[in-house]
Amino acid sequence: MGHIVNTNASYLSRKLAEIGIDVYHHITVGDNPARLANSIRTALSRSDIVITTGGLGPTVDDITVETVSALISKKLARIIRNRVGTAPGLVAEEGDKTIVCLPGPPRELEPMFEKDIIPYFRKKLRVRGIGYRGIIKSRFIKITGLPESQVNSKVKDLLNLRPPTTVGIYAKLGEVDLKIMAKAKAEVKAKKAIRKIENIINKRLKNYIFGYDDETLEGAVGKILAKKKKTLAVAESCTGGLVSNRITDVGGSSKYFTMAVVAYSNEAKENILGVPKSLIVKYGAVSKEVALAMAKGVKFLGCVDVALSVTGIAGPTGGTKRKPVGLVYIALVTDKKRLAKELRFNGSRQDIKFQATQAALDMIRKNL
Amino acid sequence: MGHIVNTNASYLSRKLAEIGIDVYHHITVGDNPARLANSIRTALSRSDIVITTGGLGPTVDDITVETVSALISKKLARIIRNRVGTAPGLVAEEGDKTIVCLPGPPRELEPMFEKDIIPYFRKKLRVRGIGYRGIIKSRFIKITGLPESQVNSKVKDLLNLRPPTTVGIYAKLGEVDLKIMAKAKAEVKAKKAIRKIENIINKRLKNYIFGYDDETLEGAVGKILAKKKKTLAVAESCTGGLVSNRITDVGGSSKYFTMAVVAYSNEAKENILGVPKSLIVKYGAVSKEVALAMAKGVKFLGCVDVALSVTGIAGPTGGTKRKPVGLVYIALVTDKKRLAKELRFNGSRQDIKFQATQAALDMIRKNL
Repeated sequence: MGHIVNTNASYLSRKLAEIGIDVYHHITVGDNPARLANSIRTALSRSDIVITTGGLGPTVDDITVETVSALISKKLARIIRNRVGTAPGLVAEEGDKTIVCLPGPPRELEPMFEKDIIPYFRKKLRVRGIGYRGIIKSRFIKITGLPESQVNSKVKDLLNLRPPTTVGIYAKLGEVDLKIMAKAKAEVKAKKAIRKIENIINKRLKNYIFGYDDETLEGAVGKILAKKKKTLAVAESCTGGLVSNRITDVGGSSKYFTMAVVAYSNEAKENILGVPKSLIVKYGAVSKEVALAMAKGVKFLGCVDVALSVTGIAGPTGGTKRKPVGLVYIALVTDKKRLAKELRFNGSRQDIKFQATQAALDMIRKNL
Repeated sequence: MGHIVNTNASYLSRKLAEIGIDVYHHITVGDNPARLANSIRTALSRSDIVITTGGLGPTVDDITVETVSALISKKLARIIRNRVGTAPGLVAEEGDKTIVCLPGPPRELEPMFEKDIIPYFRKKLRVRGIGYRGIIKSRFIKITGLPESQVNSKVKDLLNLRPPTTVGIYAKLGEVDLKIMAKAKAEVKAKKAIRKIENIINKRLKNYIFGYDDETLEGAVGKILAKKKKTLAVAESCTGGLVSNRITDVGGSSKYFTMAVVAYSNEAKENILGVPKSLIVKYGAVSKEVALAMAKGVKFLGCVDVALSVTGIAGPTGGTKRKPVGLVYIALVTDKKRLAKELRFNGSRQDIKFQATQAALDMIRKNL
C-alpha cells in the first residue's frame, strides 16, 4: 500500500556488502501466499542466499514461515531467538541454498542480523566460500559551505574512477558527501585504498570538510568548543530554535552551551537582547547590523566566550523585492572577533531554516 | 549497495492505490543489463502495468531506456517531458501491456507522475478498465497522550475488521496513528465507509486526537493560538530549543509566537528567567517548582498570554536514582491557569527531547 518505506532493504544491503556478499535483487510482495511462494521460489533459483523480512508474527497475515516451510525440509531449519520481540527468526540450508527469515520491525531485525546472522555468514564464507567476492569498505567525507557543482569540479577525476575503488558524490541540504568505496580480498587492502583517495580529497577540500562517516556538524562544533574550553550562547530569529536544538542534540553539550534566546518578534530583539530600536528602524530586523547586535546582546546575557546569531526570512511569506524569502544574516562575536555574513537560500520554510543553521554552525567551526 | 532508501516504491504504491491500481510486486535490481532485462521481462509477463524508476540519465550507468527499448517496439513509445531535471520519461504500450519509465530523483519523479502519468492512467482505466478493482481511500487519525496499548484496547474491535474497510494501528514516537482504509467501486462510497468508522473512533478517543492526515501537533497548536488570538512564549531546558523550533516550523507562526529562552545552565534560569536560586537549591533544576517558575519568568519577559516550559534530563548522562534520565516536568501558565506535570520517557537523548516536546505542545492544545 506504500504506507511503510522499506528501510530493511537498504540496511541489509549495506551490511551484506561490508562482509563481501553482493545483493543482486530486492523483491517486495504482499501477504498473498501464491505470490509470496512464487517470489521465494524465483529467488532461490537464482541466488545462493535468500533473506526474507517480516511475516513471522502470530496473526493471519503472517504467512512467511508457512510459505518457506512448504519449500524446504523443516528438519534443516534452525530457530533464531528474538531478543527484542516475540517472533523468532529462522535459518535453513537446503543443498547449496540458504534461506534466512528475519522479523520485519527494524528494532527486532537489526540486533538479530548483527548478533546471529552476520557471524553465521562469516563462518559460512570461510568454510564454503559462498558468494565470497571480497570485502567492501566505504568512507563518507562530509562537506559544507561549497555547492555540489564546486565540490564536483574539485574531484571530477576521482568521480571517474572505476572499480575496485570508486568515489560518488551525494548532495544533501546544506551538505555534500563524497563516498569512497573500495573492494578488496582483505579488509586491510580495502582500507589502504580508501586512505589513499581520502588523503587526496582532504588536500583538495581542506577546511570545507567538517567530518567523516557518522560525524555531524553540531558534533564537530561541540568538539571544538569543548577542546578550547569556550562557552557558547545563541540568538535566533528565523531559525526559531533549530541552531540551539542541534547543539543540544549532542550529549554533554551542557559543558559548553549555556543559553539561547529565540527573539522572533522585534520587541524580543529589543527588550531581551538589547538590540537598539534605531538599528531595526534604519536597517530592518533582517540585516547585518541587527545580526551583530543580536550576537553582542546574547554574549552579554549569557556571559559567554562565543555568541552566534541568525536573522532572516524563512518564508513562505514575508519577503520583499529587496529582502526576498531565503535572505539570511549570521553573525559571530567573540572577545576578539566580530563577523557577519549575508547568505541566500532556496527551498521550503524548513529547508531555509536548516540551511541557515548549517551556515551558522559552520561559522563557529571555521572561526574558532 | 544500500546507501539509498527506496522511497519511490512507497510513493508510487500509495498514489497508485488511490486511483485503484493494485501493486503486487516491487523489484530493485542493480545497473546490470542482463539482470535488469530479466526483471523487466518477468514483470511484463505477470502484470498489466510495469513502472521503472531511475537509469534514464546520460551516463554509462543509465541503462534503463536501452534495456526497455530492446523489449518493446520503439515506435509505440511516447516521451514525457521532465519539468525539473534533464532526463525525460517514457510511456510505451505493447498489446495489453503498458510500461512507464520515470526518472529516479523523487523531485523529478513526483511531478512527472502526478502531472502526466496519473491523468494518463485515469483515462486508461476509464477506456479499457485495466487493473480497475476499485478505489482505495485512507484516512489517518493522529493521537497523542495515550500509549499504544491503551489506544489498542479502545479500538480492538475495529482492528479486527476485514476488507473492504480496515483499521490499522501505527505507534510512532510520542504519537499513535490509526489508519482507516476503505476499498469501493466509487470514491463517494469509500469516503462514506471511512466517515462511519472515523465517527466511532472520534467518540472513543475524543480529545486525544490532535489531527488528521497531514496535520501536525505544532500546526494544531498554532491554529488554536491564532483562532483565540493568544500570544505564546516558551522557556526550555532539556528540549534545547526543539519546542520553539517545531512551533516556528509552521508558516505564519510569528502571529502568535514572540520568543523563547533556552535556559540550559542554572545561571540562565536564574539570571534570564528570574527563577529564584532558592527554588533550584531546594527542589533541583528538574522539578515541578522550577518548571512553573520558568514559565512565569518567560510569560513576564515576553508579555504574552500563554507561557510554556520544559525542564528534564535528556541523558544519556546526568541521571540519578531519584531523578533518572527521561524525567521531565512541563508547565503552562496563563492569566488564569498554572499547571505543571511530571512525565517519564524512555529512549535516546533525541527520543526523550522529542517526546517532551510532544507532551508540552499537547498541554497547550488541551488547556486553551
